[in-house]
Amino acid sequence: MVAEHTSPNVTGHHSVDVQTVIPNETNNQTKRNKRMNNNQMKLHGFSGGIESGERIPLANKTFNRQVSLGTGVTVLGMDKGFKDTCSSNGDGSASLHRSGTSLGRLRDGVGGGVPRKGDFSIFRTKSTLNKQNSLLPSRELDAHVSGLMQEDPVNKSVPAGRYFAALRGPELDEVRDSEDILLPKDEKWPFLLRFPIGCFGICLGLGSQAILWGAISSSPALSFLHITPIISLVLWVLALAVMIFVATTYSLKCMFYFEAIRREYFHPVRVNFFFAPWIACMFLAIGLPPAFAPARLHPAVWCAFVIPVFALELKIYGQWLSGGKRRLCKVANPSSHLSVVGNFVGAILAAKVGWLEVGRFMWAIGLAHYLCVFVTLYQRLPTNEALPKELHPVYSMFVATPSAASIAWKAVYGEFDAVARSFFFIALFLYISLVVRIEFFRGFRFSVAWWSYTFPMTTASLASIRYAEEAPCFFSKGLALGLSMTSSTMVALLFVSTLLHAFVWRSLFPNDLAIAITKDKNTSGGKQGKKSTKKTYDIKRWAKQAPFSLVSSITKSLSVDKDSDGHLTT
Amino acid sequence: MVAEHTSPNVTGHHSVDVQTVIPNETNNQTKRNKRMNNNQMKLHGFSGGIESGERIPLANKTFNRQVSLGTGVTVLGMDKGFKDTCSSNGDGSASLHRSGTSLGRLRDGVGGGVPRKGDFSIFRTKSTLNKQNSLLPSRELDAHVSGLMQEDPVNKSVPAGRYFAALRGPELDEVRDSEDILLPKDEKWPFLLRFPIGCFGICLGLGSQAILWGAISSSPALSFLHITPIISLVLWVLALAVMIFVATTYSLKCMFYFEAIRREYFHPVRVNFFFAPWIACMFLAIGLPPAFAPARLHPAVWCAFVIPVFALELKIYGQWLSGGKRRLCKVANPSSHLSVVGNFVGAILAAKVGWLEVGRFMWAIGLAHYLCVFVTLYQRLPTNEALPKELHPVYSMFVATPSAASIAWKAVYGEFDAVARSFFFIALFLYISLVVRIEFFRGFRFSVAWWSYTFPMTTASLASIRYAEEAPCFFSKGLALGLSMTSSTMVALLFVSTLLHAFVWRSLFPNDLAIAITKDKNTSGGKQGKKSTKKTYDIKRWAKQAPFSLVSSITKSLSVDKDSDGHLTT
Amino acid sequence: MVAEHTSPNVTGHHSVDVQTVIPNETNNQTKRNKRMNNNQMKLHGFSGGIESGERIPLANKTFNRQVSLGTGVTVLGMDKGFKDTCSSNGDGSASLHRSGTSLGRLRDGVGGGVPRKGDFSIFRTKSTLNKQNSLLPSRELDAHVSGLMQEDPVNKSVPAGRYFAALRGPELDEVRDSEDILLPKDEKWPFLLRFPIGCFGICLGLGSQAILWGAISSSPALSFLHITPIISLVLWVLALAVMIFVATTYSLKCMFYFEAIRREYFHPVRVNFFFAPWIACMFLAIGLPPAFAPARLHPAVWCAFVIPVFALELKIYGQWLSGGKRRLCKVANPSSHLSVVGNFVGAILAAKVGWLEVGRFMWAIGLAHYLCVFVTLYQRLPTNEALPKELHPVYSMFVATPSAASIAWKAVYGEFDAVARSFFFIALFLYISLVVRIEFFRGFRFSVAWWSYTFPMTTASLASIRYAEEAPCFFSKGLALGLSMTSSTMVALLFVSTLLHAFVWRSLFPNDLAIAITKDKNTSGGKQGKKSTKKTYDIKRWAKQAPFSLVSSITKSLSVDKDSDGHLTT
Repeated sequence: MVAEHTSPNVTGHHSVDVQTVIPNETNNQTKRNKRMNNNQMKLHGFSGGIESGERIPLANKTFNRQVSLGTGVTVLGMDKGFKDTCSSNGDGSASLHRSGTSLGRLRDGVGGGVPRKGDFSIFRTKSTLNKQNSLLPSRELDAHVSGLMQEDPVNKSVPAGRYFAALRGPELDEVRDSEDILLPKDEKWPFLLRFPIGCFGICLGLGSQAILWGAISSSPALSFLHITPIISLVLWVLALAVMIFVATTYSLKCMFYFEAIRREYFHPVRVNFFFAPWIACMFLAIGLPPAFAPARLHPAVWCAFVIPVFALELKIYGQWLSGGKRRLCKVANPSSHLSVVGNFVGAILAAKVGWLEVGRFMWAIGLAHYLCVFVTLYQRLPTNEALPKELHPVYSMFVATPSAASIAWKAVYGEFDAVARSFFFIALFLYISLVVRIEFFRGFRFSVAWWSYTFPMTTASLASIRYAEEAPCFFSKGLALGLSMTSSTMVALLFVSTLLHAFVWRSLFPNDLAIAITKDKNTSGGKQGKKSTKKTYDIKRWAKQAPFSLVSSITKSLSVDKDSDGHLTT
Repeated sequence: MVAEHTSPNVTGHHSVDVQTVIPNETNNQTKRNKRMNNNQMKLHGFSGGIESGERIPLANKTFNRQVSLGTGVTVLGMDKGFKDTCSSNGDGSASLHRSGTSLGRLRDGVGGGVPRKGDFSIFRTKSTLNKQNSLLPSRELDAHVSGLMQEDPVNKSVPAGRYFAALRGPELDEVRDSEDILLPKDEKWPFLLRFPIGCFGICLGLGSQAILWGAISSSPALSFLHITPIISLVLWVLALAVMIFVATTYSLKCMFYFEAIRREYFHPVRVNFFFAPWIACMFLAIGLPPAFAPARLHPAVWCAFVIPVFALELKIYGQWLSGGKRRLCKVANPSSHLSVVGNFVGAILAAKVGWLEVGRFMWAIGLAHYLCVFVTLYQRLPTNEALPKELHPVYSMFVATPSAASIAWKAVYGEFDAVARSFFFIALFLYISLVVRIEFFRGFRFSVAWWSYTFPMTTASLASIRYAEEAPCFFSKGLALGLSMTSSTMVALLFVSTLLHAFVWRSLFPNDLAIAITKDKNTSGGKQGKKSTKKTYDIKRWAKQAPFSLVSSITKSLSVDKDSDGHLTT
Repeated sequence: MVAEHTSPNVTGHHSVDVQTVIPNETNNQTKRNKRMNNNQMKLHGFSGGIESGERIPLANKTFNRQVSLGTGVTVLGMDKGFKDTCSSNGDGSASLHRSGTSLGRLRDGVGGGVPRKGDFSIFRTKSTLNKQNSLLPSRELDAHVSGLMQEDPVNKSVPAGRYFAALRGPELDEVRDSEDILLPKDEKWPFLLRFPIGCFGICLGLGSQAILWGAISSSPALSFLHITPIISLVLWVLALAVMIFVATTYSLKCMFYFEAIRREYFHPVRVNFFFAPWIACMFLAIGLPPAFAPARLHPAVWCAFVIPVFALELKIYGQWLSGGKRRLCKVANPSSHLSVVGNFVGAILAAKVGWLEVGRFMWAIGLAHYLCVFVTLYQRLPTNEALPKELHPVYSMFVATPSAASIAWKAVYGEFDAVARSFFFIALFLYISLVVRIEFFRGFRFSVAWWSYTFPMTTASLASIRYAEEAPCFFSKGLALGLSMTSSTMVALLFVSTLLHAFVWRSLFPNDLAIAITKDKNTSGGKQGKKSTKKTYDIKRWAKQAPFSLVSSITKSLSVDKDSDGHLTT
C-alpha cells in the first residue's frame, strides 16, 4: 500500500532527475565512447548488438536507453549467421543442442522463422561459447571472450538486492514496469531458457502422490477403502517418467545455458527450488513400489540423493548466517520451507535404508532451521522483501514442513508420540488457516510453480494417515480420507491444466523474465547516469520499506534537485 | 529516550510547517467549503455538531482545528433534543437502552444534568441509528445515513498504524498530547462507552482464583493446609456473578455501541482481550465445583467456549502472517500472550471433557504460536511499536502462557514430564525475573486492566501445585504455597481497590479515550493541510524508530523548509 | 560492503562539516574556557593532563583536538610524582597494588622508565582515588572528586550505542579510525588495564580440556584407547593454577581499576564474558579428578558458582527484554551464547551435586533463552550491529550451547534420548557448517579471546563421547575421537601461542583500546561542534544500516551543508 502510494512521487522524481542529469551524462558518454572506441566496437558486435554504434546521435539518447536492449539486437542480422554457424559445429554437443532447440520448437510451436537468438548467447555456458568461437579468428575470439567476461551484463552474480529491486510478486517472477530486461520480451525464447527449475515441482507433486496412494492402499487405517496398489504403481511410473524428462531437459539447460542456471541459483526464491530435484528423487525412492523394491533400500540411494541436499544446505544456511544480502531476515519467504523440508524427507529415506541415527541427525538439522524459518516468516519482518502482502499458493509450503517433520519423527524414532503429534497438529492448523482464506488464492494465473504447492497437501495427507493409524477413530480416518482426496483432486486438476497448457494452449513455458534482469538498472547509461539511477532505485526500495516514504522521498528528491541545481550553477 | 529527546524538534518543526502551509490551506478550505456547502450543512448538523457552520470565519481556522471536535458540540443543544426523541422510541430496544444508561448513571454517579450525548451517536450501532432516525423525514434520514457511512470519522476500520501514532503507553490507552479525539474530554461519556473489553479481566482473575483454591483444597501436595473447598465454591459463585454482569453489560455495549466495539477490536492491544471472555468462561468450566459438576463435562461446553477462540485465532494469527499493518513484528506486545494462552486453557478444558486428542491439537497450536510470540517479544524488534520502554504489569502476561502450557501438557499427556517441567521452570524464571524488577511496577494508576495481570500469577501458582504434586518436597510445597498466597493477596487487594474505585471514588471507568481517536490526524484540515500533517506524523514515527532521529529530523525539516521556501518564491 | 562503499562519502562529509563549523566552535570554546576556567584547571591537572592549558592558542585547535588525549599527557611529569606518592601510601591495599604493577612490569617487560600514568587514574576505583587524595588539601580533593563524578569522560555508563559507534570488529575490540580514545595509544598501559575479562577464556579452555580427558580416560566408548587419567589430572591442576592466577589478577584490576571493569561490563560483547569466570569455576568443579573428589560434591559448590551466573542472567536477560539500547535485537552476537551456556553447565553441575530438579530448572531457562538467541542470530536482523559480515572464531560459540544442552539433558534427565540427540546433532551440523568455511577463519591476529573459542569444540567433543556411549559404533567412536583430538590440538596450539606471546614476543596483552573510548564523540568540542559531530555519527550509523546509504548520505550531507551555509549567511 505504501509502495503504491509513493510510486508516483518516486517515478516523477526519477524522470526529472534523469533529464537534469543528461547534459553531464552525454558529455561523459561521448568521452567514454571516444576512449573505448578501439575495442568496444568489436565486442558489442557479438555480445550485445550495436549499442555503441547506434548511440552516437545524442538526440536519441533518452529513447535509446530504453529500447537498446529490447530491440537493438534486431537491427543487424549478423548474429543470426553467427548462430547458425555455431549450431552446425558438427561435434557431439551440437547435436545435443539441436535436439534441445527442436524440442523447444515442438513444444512452443512457434514454428515458422528461425528466431534471432543472437543475444541469447549471453546466457550460454562459457565453454560452449569458446567452442563455438573456435571458428572465429583467434584475435576476435579473445576480444569476444574477454569482453563477455568483463563487460557483459550477465556477470558472475547478480546481487540479491537487485532481484528484489527488479522483480515483484510472491515468487519474484514478474519484472517491474520500470525495468529493462536483457532479452527481447516480444518473442519466444529458446525452450531451454524458458524451462525453469520450478518444473521439478511436477516431480514433487507426482512423487508424493505415488507415496500417498501407496500409503492409502497399505495403511490399516484406510484398509476399508480397498484401494489397489496399482494406482500407486502407475503414479510412481508416471512420476519416474516425468522425472527423467525434466531432469534430462534441465541437464541440457545446464549444459547449454549454464549462465541462466546461475541466475536461477542467485534468485532469492528460486534457489530454494534447487532442493526440489533431490527431494523428488527421495520421494521416488521412498515411494518405490514393493514390486520393484528390496526389503530395504541400499544406503547408497540415501547418499546419492541426500548428499547434494546436505551440501546445498551448508551453502544456503551459511548464507543466512553470513552477513551478506542473503541473510535470513532478507530472503526468508515461504519457499524457504523447501530448503528445510529436505531434511525431514531425508530422515524418512534414512529410516527406509536403515540408518536411523543418520535420520535423526537430519531431523535435528531440520528442526533447528525450521524453527528459524517459521519464526522469521511469522514475524514478517519489514526486511523480508520477498514476502508479498497478499496470500498466494506459495503459502501452502507452510504445511509441508511440519507434516514431513511429523512423518519423519515416526520414521526415525518409531513412535507417533507427542512430538510427531504436535507437528502434525501444527500442520493441520496451518492447513485450516489457509483453507479459510481460500478466497485469497483465487485469481492467480496458472504456472508450473503451482505443482510445488501440491506436495504440501499430499504430505499433510500422509501425516494424517499416519495419525489415523495411531488414533483410529471416525474423525481421524475421515480427516485422512478428506485430505487425501483433496490433494489427489488438486493434483489431477493440475495435471489436466498442465497438459492443456502444454499441448493445447502451448503456454506452459512463457518467457522466464526473472532470469533476464539487468545486473544494474539501465546498464547502458553512462557513469553519471548510473549514479542518478542508483539514487532512484535506492529511494524506491526505501519507499517500500518504510511507512514514511512519502515525506522522505519528497525531501530527498528536493535536496537532490538542489544538488543538481547547485552542480549546474557552480 | 530517543523519542523524548527529539520530540521538541519534531513538534517545533510541526508548528512551523503548519503555519507556512496555512495560506494554501485556507484557500483550499474556502473552495472546499463552497463545493460541499450543499449537503454538508445537513450532515454535520446531526453527526458531528456544527463544525462546518463555525468554520466559515477563516481567521479562526487554526484555533478552530484544535477545538472543534472537543468543544464544537457544546454550542448547540439541538442534538440533546434529538437524543431524547430517539431514546423514547418506545420499542423493546429503547427500554434496554434506557436500562443501559441508567446503569451508567447509577455507577458513575454524575447524576444531575443529562449530558449532551449527541456526538456519542457516532459510536452507535448502525441499525440502531436507522431505527432512531425512522422518525425523521426520509430524505434527511438518507442524507444522514449516507453521510455517516461516507464522511464520519468513525469509519469502518481505523488502520493499525493510526493507533500506534495517536496512542501511547504499554496498553496504548493514553492519547498523545498532539491528538484530538472525537468525543469531549471534559465530560463523562455514557457508561457503556466507558466499559472496556478489559473488564473481562476481572472474570479471568476471579475464575482462576476459584480454580486455584479448588486445587489447594484438593491437592495432595497441600493437603496439610486443610483448606475447605467452600472457599473455592464461594469464589466460583462470585466469579460467575461477575461474569454474568460483565457479559451482560458488554452485550449491551455490543447492541448499542457496536462501532465502539469495532474500534476496540481494531486496537492492536485490545484485540487480544477479545480472547478474555472465552478464556474466563473456560476457567469457570474448569473450576466448576464438584458439587455442581458431573464426573465429566459434556463436550458441548468445550465447543461453546473454544470454537470462538479458535475462530478468533484463525483471524488474528492470519493477520500476523498476512503482510498488513497488523503483522506480528508490529503488533506483538505482552498482551499477545492472551491470544496464545487460550489454546492451553482450551487444552485443559478438552482434557476435562475427555477429548484428549483435541486437547493435544490445541496444545500444539499454542506451542507454535507461543514460540513466535516469545521470540518476537524477547527480541524487542524496533518495529514493535507497542512495546514500552519501562516495565508494566502487562509484562506479567509472560508468566501466564508457559504456566498454562505446563498444566495443559500434564492434562493432555497425563504426565508432568520434562516438557511440563520445562515450561513450568520457564514460567518460574520469568516470574523471578519480574519480581526482582518489582520497583519498576510502582507508580502506575489503577485500572480495570490490572485484573488481567493477576491471572498469570494464579496460573503460575496452579502450575507450582502440579509440580509440588509431582516432586513433593519442602521447597516445592513452599513454592506452591508462597505463589498461591501471593496471587490470592494480589487478587484480594485488587478486589478491594476495584470496589473502592467503583463505589467510593466512583472512578472505576474513566473515559475510554483510546476508542475515540480520529481516523486521520486533524480530519478537519483541507487537502494541503492533511499532506503537511502526514509529513509531520511520518517524521514522528520515524523519530521514534531510529536512533539517529535527531539528525534526520533536522535535515528533513530543513529540506522541507527549503521546499516551502522554494514553493513560495517560485 | 555497503559500509565500505559509503565510508569515503561519509568521511569526506565529516571533514567538510568540521571545518565549516569551526568558527562557531572556537568562539564557543573560548567562552566555555572562560566560564570554566576557575575549577577546570585544577581538575584537568589531575585527571586528564593539561588539555585546557594547552588549548588556549586557538590556531592549534583542529590539530589539538586529535592529539590532546593521545599526547597531552606526556608534557608534564607531575602526575608521576603523584603516582609514586600514592603507591607508597603504606597500607595493605598499597602493597597489593604494588604486587599488581610489578606483575605487570614482569609480564610486559617494558622495564625501564616508569610510565607516566597520571591519566590512567580516570579508570581507577573511586574509593582508591579518595584514599590517594587524602594527602591533598581537602578543598582540592572535593573539587577533584566532584569533577571526576560530573565532568570526566569516564562517566557512570557509556551507552551501548556508543560502543557500536566507536568500535568495530566481531568482538568490538578495534577502535574506528575516526575515534579518539581517552588513553595514549603510543605507550603501554598499566598491566592491569590491559588485562581483559576475556582472559578467563584460558580457564574455560583448560578446564573443559580437563573434563574432556577425564571423559576420554573413563568413557567405555573410548576405553580402547587406554588413556591414563593422569593427563586429565595434570590438565586440571594446570587449569586450576591458571584460574587462580587470572582470578587474582582480575581481582586486583577490580580493586584498582574498577572503572575499567565497569566499562568492560557495559561493552555489549564483553559483558557476556562476565559469565566466563563462573563457567570456568563450574568446569573445574565438574572436572574435579576422582582422586580429590568425594563421591558427590557438596551443593554449596553449586550455589557458590551458579548464583552469580543466575544473578547476572536476571540482569542481562532483563536488559534484553527492557526496551533500552541493550535489547536483544541490538546486542545479540555470537558471544551471547556465553550467557546462555552457563545455564547448561550449571545444570550439569547441579546433577553432580545431586540437585536434579534444580538442574532441570537451569536447563529450561537455558532452553528458552537459547531459542531466542539462536533464532535472533540466525535471522541476522539489520539492527544487530555487532554481527560482523565476515566469519570469525567467535562463531564457534554457536557449537557450545547445543553441545552443552545435550550433555546437560543427559545429566539431569538420565537419558541420552531424542532431545539430547537433537541438540547434539544440531551442534554437529553447526560444527560442520563452520568447518567447511574454515578459510574464512584465517588471517585473524591472535588474541587471548581465542581461548574462549576452544571450549565449544571441547564441549562438542564431550557430547560426541556421550553420544558414542549411547550409540557405540565405528562412526560415532571415530567422531568422538576425531573431535577430541581436534580440540586438544587446538588447545595445545593456543597454549604454545600464548606462551610465545607472553614470554617471547611479550605481546599477549596489547592496550585494551575498547575500554578507553570517549563517552561522546569529540568530547573536547563545544556545543555546536558536538551537534555537528552528532550528525556525522548518526549518518554513519545510518549508512551502515541501510542499503541505500549512498544516496541518503549524499542528500543528507548536502542539506547539512545548506544548513550551515544558511546559518553562516543569516
